[in-house]
Amino acid sequence: MIIVMKRNADEEKIDAVIRWIESVGYRAHVSKGVERTIIGAVGDEREKVRLKAAENMPGVEKVMPILQPYKLASRETKDGNTVIKVGDVEIGGPKCIVIAGPCAVESEKQLLETARAVKKAGASMLRGGAFKPRTSPYSFQGMGEEGLKILARAREETGLPVVTEVMNPSDVELVERYADVLQVGTRNVQNFALLKAVGCARKPVLLKRGMMTTLEELLMSAEYILASGNDHVMLCERGIRTFETAMRNTLDISAVPVLKDKTHLPVVVDPSHAIGQWRFVLPLAKAAVAVGADGLMIEVHPDPQNALSDGPQSLKPEKFVKLMEEIEAIGKIVRKENV
Amino acid sequence: MIIVMKRNADEEKIDAVIRWIESVGYRAHVSKGVERTIIGAVGDEREKVRLKAAENMPGVEKVMPILQPYKLASRETKDGNTVIKVGDVEIGGPKCIVIAGPCAVESEKQLLETARAVKKAGASMLRGGAFKPRTSPYSFQGMGEEGLKILARAREETGLPVVTEVMNPSDVELVERYADVLQVGTRNVQNFALLKAVGCARKPVLLKRGMMTTLEELLMSAEYILASGNDHVMLCERGIRTFETAMRNTLDISAVPVLKDKTHLPVVVDPSHAIGQWRFVLPLAKAAVAVGADGLMIEVHPDPQNALSDGPQSLKPEKFVKLMEEIEAIGKIVRKENV
Amino acid sequence: MIIVMKRNADEEKIDAVIRWIESVGYRAHVSKGVERTIIGAVGDEREKVRLKAAENMPGVEKVMPILQPYKLASRETKDGNTVIKVGDVEIGGPKCIVIAGPCAVESEKQLLETARAVKKAGASMLRGGAFKPRTSPYSFQGMGEEGLKILARAREETGLPVVTEVMNPSDVELVERYADVLQVGTRNVQNFALLKAVGCARKPVLLKRGMMTTLEELLMSAEYILASGNDHVMLCERGIRTFETAMRNTLDISAVPVLKDKTHLPVVVDPSHAIGQWRFVLPLAKAAVAVGADGLMIEVHPDPQNALSDGPQSLKPEKFVKLMEEIEAIGKIVRKENV
Amino acid sequence: MIIVMKRNADEEKIDAVIRWIESVGYRAHVSKGVERTIIGAVGDEREKVRLKAAENMPGVEKVMPILQPYKLASRETKDGNTVIKVGDVEIGGPKCIVIAGPCAVESEKQLLETARAVKKAGASMLRGGAFKPRTSPYSFQGMGEEGLKILARAREETGLPVVTEVMNPSDVELVERYADVLQVGTRNVQNFALLKAVGCARKPVLLKRGMMTTLEELLMSAEYILASGNDHVMLCERGIRTFETAMRNTLDISAVPVLKDKTHLPVVVDPSHAIGQWRFVLPLAKAAVAVGADGLMIEVHPDPQNALSDGPQSLKPEKFVKLMEEIEAIGKIVRKENV
Repeated sequence: MIIVMKRNADEEKIDAVIRWIESVGYRAHVSKGVERTIIGAVGDEREKVRLKAAENMPGVEKVMPILQPYKLASRETKDGNTVIKVGDVEIGGPKCIVIAGPCAVESEKQLLETARAVKKAGASMLRGGAFKPRTSPYSFQGMGEEGLKILARAREETGLPVVTEVMNPSDVELVERYADVLQVGTRNVQNFALLKAVGCARKPVLLKRGMMTTLEELLMSAEYILASGNDHVMLCERGIRTFETAMRNTLDISAVPVLKDKTHLPVVVDPSHAIGQWRFVLPLAKAAVAVGADGLMIEVHPDPQNALSDGPQSLKPEKFVKLMEEIEAIGKIVRKENV
Repeated sequence: MIIVMKRNADEEKIDAVIRWIESVGYRAHVSKGVERTIIGAVGDEREKVRLKAAENMPGVEKVMPILQPYKLASRETKDGNTVIKVGDVEIGGPKCIVIAGPCAVESEKQLLETARAVKKAGASMLRGGAFKPRTSPYSFQGMGEEGLKILARAREETGLPVVTEVMNPSDVELVERYADVLQVGTRNVQNFALLKAVGCARKPVLLKRGMMTTLEELLMSAEYILASGNDHVMLCERGIRTFETAMRNTLDISAVPVLKDKTHLPVVVDPSHAIGQWRFVLPLAKAAVAVGADGLMIEVHPDPQNALSDGPQSLKPEKFVKLMEEIEAIGKIVRKENV
Repeated sequence: MIIVMKRNADEEKIDAVIRWIESVGYRAHVSKGVERTIIGAVGDEREKVRLKAAENMPGVEKVMPILQPYKLASRETKDGNTVIKVGDVEIGGPKCIVIAGPCAVESEKQLLETARAVKKAGASMLRGGAFKPRTSPYSFQGMGEEGLKILARAREETGLPVVTEVMNPSDVELVERYADVLQVGTRNVQNFALLKAVGCARKPVLLKRGMMTTLEELLMSAEYILASGNDHVMLCERGIRTFETAMRNTLDISAVPVLKDKTHLPVVVDPSHAIGQWRFVLPLAKAAVAVGADGLMIEVHPDPQNALSDGPQSLKPEKFVKLMEEIEAIGKIVRKENV
Repeated sequence: MIIVMKRNADEEKIDAVIRWIESVGYRAHVSKGVERTIIGAVGDEREKVRLKAAENMPGVEKVMPILQPYKLASRETKDGNTVIKVGDVEIGGPKCIVIAGPCAVESEKQLLETARAVKKAGASMLRGGAFKPRTSPYSFQGMGEEGLKILARAREETGLPVVTEVMNPSDVELVERYADVLQVGTRNVQNFALLKAVGCARKPVLLKRGMMTTLEELLMSAEYILASGNDHVMLCERGIRTFETAMRNTLDISAVPVLKDKTHLPVVVDPSHAIGQWRFVLPLAKAAVAVGADGLMIEVHPDPQNALSDGPQSLKPEKFVKLMEEIEAIGKIVRKENV
């Protein structure tokens, strides 16, 4: 932590800051510049968010952290990449894998039809929500446990592992009984009670970035899960909220290489939620593979215009087949370099 | 809902849309313009978010909702303003009330000292967190039930009703036993499991706007609580996230009159979290009263530089006294007009 | 400037950075922490944006500036506040002044009618655009020099000094012949050719913040004008662009106290452009006075629904009278404290 | 344009709106719904931004435009894609072309060395600024005409056409004498005086998106150039400003397919300015090719750590060679589909 003093801060104020730094367990390192005195607080600042409170002391202009605040999620803590195995599927390994399926489980027929189609097209995992976070209390809220059972049946039939969302800490045990990967949704990215709960689960977690979450905050949310004992976290970029309204969200494609520079955890991209319109999902999927994503998450629905949620952004199975073909060629070029 | 067809959409495509609109229970109303055909879907669009899925149909350019999606929170549903009584305190009435206290309950001594000071200065309610949502798992997470007990003791001594945060749906019952108002925090504004849980509580709810929540989404979150049976919701503007980094958040002062135009619910402003630096809290508090807020929420701490959280933005008790004096004069001018 | 080295940066890399710092004219000051070595580049970093290029050197994690990059605009350079005199009007002095008038000069009749009305209601200056920056090339682009002549006539009749926009560096001389204050518009806040041109003018400049300009960038744009020799710059907060679409822009009310903390230049607020809807202009004007603005800029039009631009946000003269009355009482309370 | 009336708007107010619509030259088309009356204003709304002023009329809730406001830039006006020829180079054709070079022309030696290197690596055009828009007045402002002459010499030697920025309308003629493509920079995207000036030039224009510019506004800025008579406009996505600070800007990769859906103009991507750190330029360049960009703009400098501007994001020539190789394979896959 660097504490920058105001230009006119006198010795007394500087001394007070030094004494305070030492009182909270750090070593002070003073550097007098032409215009400013700056004081380094030497020690591990990560456990001392309280150092920020120095901003309240007389003569202090600002307090600047030096270290990133996460540890377990950091490349500094772990060499190499985390590869998460879900059945036969490896996320974070040489292949860019594809998770596909409908936004919500609506019926056994709808889900099985989709599961068979995406399996046939080459998807590695099946997605589908049984508990749905909806902006409106009047929208379809999901089928609950019945939806989970349908997902399990689809896995049995197709062999595809299942990713599904959990919204309430008290549901983690239930969802874990049926699902292969627990999804923490965009709106729950800083629901710390939920993060701690999935951190105690034995299934891997897919953690979606919030619409307003910085990469640092996303990594801190992953840190909650890791610190609770669950090492298997994959991050998911799904578009952030910006001033632009031409798309549902702004896909932050740069997040992929920047995250992979900072963390050993795998990074998945969800172009469907980012763009919100099915006809732009294909080019974004190609971009995501090209930029180095470890996986894609794609919404597929057999009858999008009658979908109970996210119809506008869902691909029909035949379009999904095309997508799988087109990304394969790019994946071969791009992933080879990485291996 | 208005469905705008593409310029070159032929009769067949237009007919398909009309038939589909009727199939989901609406009446279609066609209007052929110079450049576009537009089709109105007449009926209550609020229960049919699914109409958005028309974007997936051939020939459709876009789908535009006409109605706001909330009902119970809307001024169209209720005449006059909702006034929430908490003990002797009225929120939404003629007086702009002040909720003050530390970010977190840290000890009985700290809380009681603060409670006495803010009571003496004229505050109407006491705030203080026992369950703390912290970005870092390594930061102080709050005292839990012990903190709730301290809050209750402070109420006994000072007579100030207590506002405190609940983070986990399973804690609602516990928190309700001690608190007078349940706070739903910024990061939980779209934690729908929690919204439903506080919607079933018998205590009023203070719902904080998320850092990237639109006013419409905030009202939809309020709608969740109202639709679950709890009529006593106060909204809280506490700064949104923008590109500007000179402040912790950007206080969206316009949200106050715009919300009050749309909803009958009271609107409170939290300048402390918005600006993040204690020395700017006073001018923002004055602005909030001037713009017509029904209440203020102010962080006060007897020893900010040793606070376990939010030290930089906490006022010392003597500064809080000054704030109370300065806003009183403005309140008298502004509120008189409203009554 | 602080250069933070990567955790694993060896001595050789640290030495290379030190040598480079010295080669560009600075003194290096090394501090070895528990996790990182950080190197201070001691000297005036403001003239050496190039220090940022150290990010390109092996072993460097990041480069953090310590000083604000502006000088002439900074409170560190000048004691007290800049007070700009325009005729009898003082901006930055004890009174919060009001600049009012239509978005665009549309005709002599329209402007004179407005000028008389705002003068009578107590405005201090008249605004009105002769050169209009319009998003669409098909929208009314302003009356040009004819509009300037009408503004001059309005000044003659009412005695109100005139504020009007200049868009093209080559028009500065022309506009200066007629106007009392040159306005640089939102979209030109980083039009450096224009900033240099008005920096050479002898009339004061009203510099509007851009929709996505940070306060630091705004002050750097003011610095361009000051550095070109024109000391009379007033800043104008007029709303920034955020994710929220309920208003035209988000009024960044906190910008007022934060700017006044950093700079000696006066700060004006334009609530009309910020909110974009006339019925919310009054509460925002009250908030702006309460927060400590040195002036307000308000759009007034005698017939808003037939205005050639900005009709939705223009007040009718009778509403403007009410606004002047209501802000006066707040101004008396707030400004007294400041004097 | 659709005018939505308030729920309680009576016949008198509805009639007033109808009469007003007709008075400004439109036909009114009334549709009474269950909750709202909506009135369509039939006619070409693009020339009547004034219809927005209906928001000022009693009983009106909101005014919603139906048509996009641009014409010449729209796919509705022109079939097929605009292909811009600059010497032998085609932008918008089957190949994704690469424009490379330093941020600023610093010396003949620096530019020629870079020009030769990028030519050899396969670049199609040379970039380099002679007039530099810098946030700080104390930063290097470019070499001016001397820089233009150096650019012309580099073209002579390498055969690469030259792209360079023009900042002042009065410099257009000068820059046009030396450059092959006129660049309008990010901060000038709504400098309408400049847009009109380059609209009268005979050289193609590369129009960079502003940090805060929506795609619709970008197309309106292109419309200014097109409407002034210059058909040869290429758009450039270069990152937008968001809340995220881990990168210099947020590359809006979705802008490419969305723009190409709306306009016939070519779209170029500048990953260097978007990300601001050289080591992430390569993956973003691959993503840009994969998503369907017509061109890339890449900053290359022979000695980035001593560059006078944009050092941190500039590639050394040897890294640029690698980039050219890697994007070629992706280009072959992706562009084939488009042709």
